[in-house]
Amino acid sequence: MARKAKMRLGMSMRGLGYHPAAWRHPQVPADGTLRFEHYVRNAQAAERGLFDMIFFADGIGIREKDEPRGSLARSGYEIVEMEPMTLLPALAAVTRHIGLVTTASTTYNEPYHVARKFATLDLISGGRAGWNIVTSWSEAEAQNFNREEHLDYDTRYARAAEFVEVVKGLWDGWEPDAFPYDKAGGIFFDESRLHVLDHRGKHFRVRGPLNVAGMPQGRPVLVQAGASDQGREIAAESAEVVYAATDSIESAKAYYDDLKSRMAKYGRDPEQMKIMPGLRTVVGRTRAEAQAKWDELQALLDPLVGLARVYNTFGDLSGYDVDGPMPDLDYAPRVKSIADRILARARRDNMTIRELYNHIVAGGFLLIGTPADIVDGMQEWFEVGACDGFNILPTHLPVACEDFVEHVTPELQRRGLFRTAYEGTTLRENLGLAPHVNRHAAARRAQRAAE
Amino acid sequence: MARKAKMRLGMSMRGLGYHPAAWRHPQVPADGTLRFEHYVRNAQAAERGLFDMIFFADGIGIREKDEPRGSLARSGYEIVEMEPMTLLPALAAVTRHIGLVTTASTTYNEPYHVARKFATLDLISGGRAGWNIVTSWSEAEAQNFNREEHLDYDTRYARAAEFVEVVKGLWDGWEPDAFPYDKAGGIFFDESRLHVLDHRGKHFRVRGPLNVAGMPQGRPVLVQAGASDQGREIAAESAEVVYAATDSIESAKAYYDDLKSRMAKYGRDPEQMKIMPGLRTVVGRTRAEAQAKWDELQALLDPLVGLARVYNTFGDLSGYDVDGPMPDLDYAPRVKSIADRILARARRDNMTIRELYNHIVAGGFLLIGTPADIVDGMQEWFEVGACDGFNILPTHLPVACEDFVEHVTPELQRRGLFRTAYEGTTLRENLGLAPHVNRHAAARRAQRAAE
Repeated sequence: MARKAKMRLGMSMRGLGYHPAAWRHPQVPADGTLRFEHYVRNAQAAERGLFDMIFFADGIGIREKDEPRGSLARSGYEIVEMEPMTLLPALAAVTRHIGLVTTASTTYNEPYHVARKFATLDLISGGRAGWNIVTSWSEAEAQNFNREEHLDYDTRYARAAEFVEVVKGLWDGWEPDAFPYDKAGGIFFDESRLHVLDHRGKHFRVRGPLNVAGMPQGRPVLVQAGASDQGREIAAESAEVVYAATDSIESAKAYYDDLKSRMAKYGRDPEQMKIMPGLRTVVGRTRAEAQAKWDELQALLDPLVGLARVYNTFGDLSGYDVDGPMPDLDYAPRVKSIADRILARARRDNMTIRELYNHIVAGGFLLIGTPADIVDGMQEWFEVGACDGFNILPTHLPVACEDFVEHVTPELQRRGLFRTAYEGTTLRENLGLAPHVNRHAAARRAQRAAE
Repeated sequence: MARKAKMRLGMSMRGLGYHPAAWRHPQVPADGTLRFEHYVRNAQAAERGLFDMIFFADGIGIREKDEPRGSLARSGYEIVEMEPMTLLPALAAVTRHIGLVTTASTTYNEPYHVARKFATLDLISGGRAGWNIVTSWSEAEAQNFNREEHLDYDTRYARAAEFVEVVKGLWDGWEPDAFPYDKAGGIFFDESRLHVLDHRGKHFRVRGPLNVAGMPQGRPVLVQAGASDQGREIAAESAEVVYAATDSIESAKAYYDDLKSRMAKYGRDPEQMKIMPGLRTVVGRTRAEAQAKWDELQALLDPLVGLARVYNTFGDLSGYDVDGPMPDLDYAPRVKSIADRILARARRDNMTIRELYNHIVAGGFLLIGTPADIVDGMQEWFEVGACDGFNILPTHLPVACEDFVEHVTPELQRRGLFRTAYEGTTLRENLGLAPHVNRHAAARRAQRAAE
């Protein structure tokens, strides 16, 4: 099946990359997450590669635990890095086209702050802002915000839904033509175009109006990663971009079809949501070169850091020989079915502990090969209707980002799967999303039409 | 008395300027507060003028009331503008030397967020961040954050004091040498250099650690505007820059001496706090030209906007002829002594209502004249020891900022009162403040010395 639409591509730029040994790679600046030029280099490379957007995941705390003991200090992952809502405006000033998307939690924020900051980012960037809406689920974050434990699932999601409603309402408070700036008549704003929200809900009371207006996109692009049933409904109702964490084409296709089919009941066109699974790519001129790049990263994986990756499933294995077999376990895993499945596989293949964690680290959607190999894999997912594009998770930065742009992007373009120039000036336009319609302006037009 | 130290200068860049008719001025872009290039132009002008810092006041809501009815829509002041914590990183990317200071309220924020964002700004800017610590006192803000009324004074200040302690503690959590980045040995951070805060106080429980580190300044410069007795104590204990709102040299000198004398009990050197009163300047090649510039602004003042400026003192005067005398009042002013004093002055001088609000709008420290006149006024305050410099409040932007840089700065330099080049690379260095000392590193050194 040939699709006329182009693939959408995002570059996840968090930290030093999405391989847990990234920081030890000879070409990776280990102090990069604290240096502005590291982020600039990556963002500008992604823009050279015509990516729709760069994306920052975020945690408001160090969520990784020191399990096994000593592993955290050996892990360069999610320890210290720049706060993305502060970083993105600076990146806006040194880029021109690429979308700027970051996570902001609805659990430990206030909607008025979030609405103001994303509106400002949209203004600074000329319409390139996107908000990845998440809830915070970790104890580490809860304990930075006056709590001992994180909120339960239902409370988190109810708060999130109301939070998003408040933010949308604040963004729509000023109609697009609210400011005549009439110097002669002395009229700065038109009172009839200002709508005070006065929200009074279960979790929030927010009067408004917002003290910022005039976003080039009308409002920032809304991004989510709905996986649970409740999360999927929220995404179907509101999300314009969805990050999916699916590792097989079958599960991705099933997720894609399910999510898009849920949109009808909210009166939404399936084209107005772009589903983008995460994808790690390792590209070489030959397959052998690509495999060697991956093997180099795997070889840099400290055993303690590898064991940390299987801690939640199998408990503390640091007392065993990593090059010996998996021991009999007396650990009660969080998800027993997953632990049993992995363990059966390990026993069947006579995996050592090291082989097991290497196998886990290689999980998710991972393509290793020549540019043609990688585009083959991407094209298959895209053409079967398992996705609208991909969220690229570079293994190590800046190398993997620049490798993609230099080698994979041209092959995507050669096959007509990807743009050769940015289509519009805003993220919304580049993604092919419809313009945002201000609710009050729409109501006014409807009323005028009825009169 | 000649002082060897140089004056410190800040440029307040909020909105379109500090005259309430600024937006109507022919040279002012009325939509400037929603355009990034407006802020860039002002910031770059201030940097050309070697200012220590630009500064943004902030409100988390539209604090101005529509009193008298209709005045708000005619006022371009504090209606819509960019959120400064989002704006400053973008300005960091297009400036190189100037300090970047913004307000962040301790009343409706969380210390973990604030610590992270300012640490990130310090990293992005290469050590130019400053935090103006305020509490939020308005109902308009309270109502955007789940409350009907603002917090009482004592609660606000107790929360603020604890908030600042938490932020300082989070900033000090990683010692400067915490990151060996030892790729060969696999050690990313040194566990002995990480100090988990685990703060448990009345208003906050914050575990930490902060997930950002390595600030070039050690920590951002702390700014306050302590006026009340309690506010002065907090400033004496912590503030490195103080904004003062004093309108006479006598009151400024008294404030200066009082605040500096309070520092001793906190073991602080008076040189480690720079007191900078606000100052509006209107400069012309001749006194007549300067006066004409001011008169032009005053003539643009809409009567309703003028009446809004006296509403809190005299109530709604919109039913009276603005060119007639002040009526007899049945309004109960918030501060009766101030109302009585102003009213007596108005009666004595036979002021019309228009003359009265014009007089009020011209209040505060205002210098109108030639470059020599303005520097005479500044020099007098500086040399008598009433200040360490000034926070310039440009009447209208970008004109008044550029006028100052073009005409007043050279005169200050000619008299040896102001720098001719930036002395250092960080705001802390340019202000002549001592380097920040990490508390844990200091304790370690002390312990080693004792051994």
